[in-house]
Amino acid sequence: MNQSKLIPCAVFGASGYSGVELVWLLHNHPQFNVAYGFTSSARPAEPIAALYPQLAGRCDLILQPWHPNLLGAVAQQVRVAFLALPHQTSAELAPLLIKAGMTVFDLSGAFRLQDAKQHQAAYGFKQPHLAQPVPYGLAEWVDLQGDEPLIAVPGCYPTAAATALMPVRAMLKPDSAPIVNAVSGVSGAGRAAQAHTSFCEVSLQAYAIGTHRHQAEMAQTLGCELLFVPHLGSFKRGILATVYAQLAAGVSAHQVQQAFHQAYADQPLVRICQTPPKLAQVVGTPYVDVHVTVIGSQLVVSVALDNLQKGAAAQAVQLANQYIGLPTECGLLHAGAVI
Amino acid sequence: MNQSKLIPCAVFGASGYSGVELVWLLHNHPQFNVAYGFTSSARPAEPIAALYPQLAGRCDLILQPWHPNLLGAVAQQVRVAFLALPHQTSAELAPLLIKAGMTVFDLSGAFRLQDAKQHQAAYGFKQPHLAQPVPYGLAEWVDLQGDEPLIAVPGCYPTAAATALMPVRAMLKPDSAPIVNAVSGVSGAGRAAQAHTSFCEVSLQAYAIGTHRHQAEMAQTLGCELLFVPHLGSFKRGILATVYAQLAAGVSAHQVQQAFHQAYADQPLVRICQTPPKLAQVVGTPYVDVHVTVIGSQLVVSVALDNLQKGAAAQAVQLANQYIGLPTECGLLHAGAVI
Amino acid sequence: MNQSKLIPCAVFGASGYSGVELVWLLHNHPQFNVAYGFTSSARPAEPIAALYPQLAGRCDLILQPWHPNLLGAVAQQVRVAFLALPHQTSAELAPLLIKAGMTVFDLSGAFRLQDAKQHQAAYGFKQPHLAQPVPYGLAEWVDLQGDEPLIAVPGCYPTAAATALMPVRAMLKPDSAPIVNAVSGVSGAGRAAQAHTSFCEVSLQAYAIGTHRHQAEMAQTLGCELLFVPHLGSFKRGILATVYAQLAAGVSAHQVQQAFHQAYADQPLVRICQTPPKLAQVVGTPYVDVHVTVIGSQLVVSVALDNLQKGAAAQAVQLANQYIGLPTECGLLHAGAVI
Amino acid sequence: MNQSKLIPCAVFGASGYSGVELVWLLHNHPQFNVAYGFTSSARPAEPIAALYPQLAGRCDLILQPWHPNLLGAVAQQVRVAFLALPHQTSAELAPLLIKAGMTVFDLSGAFRLQDAKQHQAAYGFKQPHLAQPVPYGLAEWVDLQGDEPLIAVPGCYPTAAATALMPVRAMLKPDSAPIVNAVSGVSGAGRAAQAHTSFCEVSLQAYAIGTHRHQAEMAQTLGCELLFVPHLGSFKRGILATVYAQLAAGVSAHQVQQAFHQAYADQPLVRICQTPPKLAQVVGTPYVDVHVTVIGSQLVVSVALDNLQKGAAAQAVQLANQYIGLPTECGLLHAGAVI
Repeated sequence: MNQSKLIPCAVFGASGYSGVELVWLLHNHPQFNVAYGFTSSARPAEPIAALYPQLAGRCDLILQPWHPNLLGAVAQQVRVAFLALPHQTSAELAPLLIKAGMTVFDLSGAFRLQDAKQHQAAYGFKQPHLAQPVPYGLAEWVDLQGDEPLIAVPGCYPTAAATALMPVRAMLKPDSAPIVNAVSGVSGAGRAAQAHTSFCEVSLQAYAIGTHRHQAEMAQTLGCELLFVPHLGSFKRGILATVYAQLAAGVSAHQVQQAFHQAYADQPLVRICQTPPKLAQVVGTPYVDVHVTVIGSQLVVSVALDNLQKGAAAQAVQLANQYIGLPTECGLLHAGAVI
Repeated sequence: MNQSKLIPCAVFGASGYSGVELVWLLHNHPQFNVAYGFTSSARPAEPIAALYPQLAGRCDLILQPWHPNLLGAVAQQVRVAFLALPHQTSAELAPLLIKAGMTVFDLSGAFRLQDAKQHQAAYGFKQPHLAQPVPYGLAEWVDLQGDEPLIAVPGCYPTAAATALMPVRAMLKPDSAPIVNAVSGVSGAGRAAQAHTSFCEVSLQAYAIGTHRHQAEMAQTLGCELLFVPHLGSFKRGILATVYAQLAAGVSAHQVQQAFHQAYADQPLVRICQTPPKLAQVVGTPYVDVHVTVIGSQLVVSVALDNLQKGAAAQAVQLANQYIGLPTECGLLHAGAVI
Repeated sequence: MNQSKLIPCAVFGASGYSGVELVWLLHNHPQFNVAYGFTSSARPAEPIAALYPQLAGRCDLILQPWHPNLLGAVAQQVRVAFLALPHQTSAELAPLLIKAGMTVFDLSGAFRLQDAKQHQAAYGFKQPHLAQPVPYGLAEWVDLQGDEPLIAVPGCYPTAAATALMPVRAMLKPDSAPIVNAVSGVSGAGRAAQAHTSFCEVSLQAYAIGTHRHQAEMAQTLGCELLFVPHLGSFKRGILATVYAQLAAGVSAHQVQQAFHQAYADQPLVRICQTPPKLAQVVGTPYVDVHVTVIGSQLVVSVALDNLQKGAAAQAVQLANQYIGLPTECGLLHAGAVI
Repeated sequence: MNQSKLIPCAVFGASGYSGVELVWLLHNHPQFNVAYGFTSSARPAEPIAALYPQLAGRCDLILQPWHPNLLGAVAQQVRVAFLALPHQTSAELAPLLIKAGMTVFDLSGAFRLQDAKQHQAAYGFKQPHLAQPVPYGLAEWVDLQGDEPLIAVPGCYPTAAATALMPVRAMLKPDSAPIVNAVSGVSGAGRAAQAHTSFCEVSLQAYAIGTHRHQAEMAQTLGCELLFVPHLGSFKRGILATVYAQLAAGVSAHQVQQAFHQAYADQPLVRICQTPPKLAQVVGTPYVDVHVTVIGSQLVVSVALDNLQKGAAAQAVQLANQYIGLPTECGLLHAGAVI
């Protein structure tokens, strides 16, 4: 796979959970090649298997500390950069990489919100101004041209919410705010040791009720107000979202089901399920599984995805696939997961 | 504790998860005494520790198979019967026990629904007719007189939903159906081996969306339509419910918080929490923990309880405490759990 | 991948955990093709995704009930059969498949033990007599010629034990019985619902101390007595074995380490680790990870493998790879896992 | 329970997992009373329920930061001090408390090893010299007089190992080192956030093979060399130890079983089991469960205990019970657990 025809990529933040998942997906991809894996911290260079022994013998990438001095050399070699960095680090680095000629797929929240005030409120720093608008890369709904310098990869929760509601956006009761009730695995909180994610402390719990920054991201995508209530669950990977919305008068269950089929029939990474999906059926896969129920005028959509794959790394690769004209699922169906 | 002044009880269905929890709570109770533990199956008599080795040395109850011939002898000795049986078995047995003079606390769904048609639809058999109405024993909201022959102990999910919504029933927007999104541990499915509850198959999943029979029970209690979406979670014990409701025009967040405080300030087994409760903080306890958020006119109540304690055995004991004039929490605060 | 040059295979017992893992590994393999997936039960034909929704969109194999009448048609098309069946079913079916011209890789215990009495004692039925001896397919230690009609794929625990002790077999203190202390995930008990593998019942526990039938299999491979103590652990996949043995007088730690390096340096699916392996680093992979410690004359080997991959399906594919002259790891490094 | 006749205690390190378990056990104890709960850190005073919301409404102890200035006031009020502190903190504090007149039960490793050199090697600091020897409080084997100023509470792993081997100490083959293979839950690593105990990182793994400091403690108790191999398991509480030893020539299985029965028949917190214990049957209990197998001259003892109860807090209370002349199990059988 390491042939010279492969497109050389760099992964920034390659030591984190999303970063290593990116490395692994790209490493197994028939068209991409991970030329560099950078770590954000000041740790010495080391093989990726030193951090993730599961990759020993399968991926010999050396993780190296990023230093701005490397920019020139990297830019000569690398065409595509994937950023799995803290929000503000991304905000600072992305413009430099773009200027040096790379296409950037940014997995942070740095460029997702289009409203500068909302961004400032959600992330606590000023969003950098870029010459052109940054497409929001919801893979099934975006249409990349292949010349965008920067694509914002959606958040994990917003991917679930948008998958559930985009097909029926026009069918919802006006002024009724949908509810997104979602449970995420612990890997969503990242790899750093924290009190609330230590083994003995994790237990199913709601948090940030109506105040999570992904709520603004969902509202932006869907064009309506909504309520988002995230929960932390006692499992490693995956998001299960149960999404509630009221249908406009006269919308039938049949119309709703049709809308989902029309939206996703040709989308290989969205699976419409006849029973509510189990989280395990998407963990370690790039799929988002969707089950739709209509009860009277109430819509209930049950959505499952892997927060590190469809909610992060796999969606980034999907976008890169589209960007260079490959099938959206290219390289994603058989790769398995890292952690 | 086995003094003659204690009130002798019988637990039917004592080998199941709710049954053994009842045995343990009653065994440690200062006023009750488990005279009999009956199993519904045709297994031979055996010490409870043969099934639950955790009880060895702490509870020497012999589980014995129930046979109708025993009724006379049991009735002479036992004042209170707790039924942790399959619904239809309860429906058949309870009238016999009542006739024999016992007070029955029934943990099944046999006597919860007051509408005969709803009952038939939900449980698939005809509810037996009883001479007097059966009180629905939501412990914080019922007022037992001490002369009722039969008390229906609420279901686990309905206890969570009712705790969340009873204080604000009159404050909800008319004709707006609240949503009860709840996740239950696997013990809720009982002790028998089943494919969907085997270790490798359990994974977070919605089920019975809008069709679970607890939905009718919730609606009956709250006096309004609602939508109930249960989920199975990958943990043994506990229910975390996230309950959504729209407030009537003009209802303030302050009024809502006041309503909860008024309802529960004197209720020792309801804890109002400043942060959304973690499931672990109620597991193995008789508490139901409640956190209330108001966002505009949207109410979000996060409720946690242990499905085998507050959702079953501990609530039954609470009711029995009230029945005989003891403090509602008597014997429940320090007992721990069995499985 | 479904080209006509691929070697057509049949998987018997394809609905079980090892069976579906086989299907998935072969489906993603560059040289094999799953022509048939048979189920042992009398269930109707159905897509594999009906049982394993995680495979929807990625594998469209139809599982069909096996019937002896199918033998002729299958034999015309299929060259290699993988059997993930109950022991006795394998014992009966394998000779028929061989006679029909197929090469059989049998994952059951039907043909592992060479001593007929031991087999009878361990499995409770008489081992069928075959014209030629059946090679025991410990992948790193067997040398397949490519003309064997039947290969016995080792058990999961014995693969761990043999990996730990084969390199130092000649260095052990005579008449000192090694100890194999191992913990297996619940998937090792298969997919059928059983009381002891139901979610609420699983908890770390030793079982079959010195009486598990894998003990005889280990002893046969290693040529010495040993003590095997298996444990059930509360996780889905994986075996962690901690193996204790006494070294013969004069054997140095250096010699031991060298023996491991000589044995496995060229074996791509055995990874020698500098720290004791974590179970998670092998789950979903075909690897067996090994860490060797020598303390005085005491050897401690910590071994981790995935019971469904290296302990079953992946080792079977390894053997098939060798059989047809492919690299042992061919098709195994990037496939991920099913359950 | 807060009557003036109760013996007032202080718990130092009350915010940690062992500390809070001590608080809870003492709080529910019929003869003790927690007068003070001190934290080792410089955090402000706060109710224990702020850290452990499961205790809200059940325990209103205020945790307060310890300051040496408090010594006089505390000593006037408190008779017994329990120390659940870091080893060196204990080493420094215990002598002060003794001097002030308190009896100290120390749960750290500060006073367990009798050999000063071993202590220095194991703990990295010099053990303080005390006027009289410190009894090692293995509850079933120690005989407290009630006038000892300081009792060293054994470690969690050593309690399991000693329970397994003490009854047969004299029956073991001379110069054969027993093997203690044990798996501990994550709470054994304490409450502070650490990388290796974060939720996504925990996975069954051996560690500190032959080098854990509890090995010296076991050897001291048993009076022989042994090999201890601890493992971290993916569960919160409990230790399952599988202990291997060779019996001296001529020792029969019957003699071994008798030795265990003689040792433990009158010990209410040791349960001899007919099947190997499941971890779940001891979690949240003060018991240590033991199953003994003899295969030829090989002894296998399977031992389960809760690391925070019998391995820490409950054993400390057992010792305090004995110290003041109460039954060893007093107050321990029905209390449940905290985390």
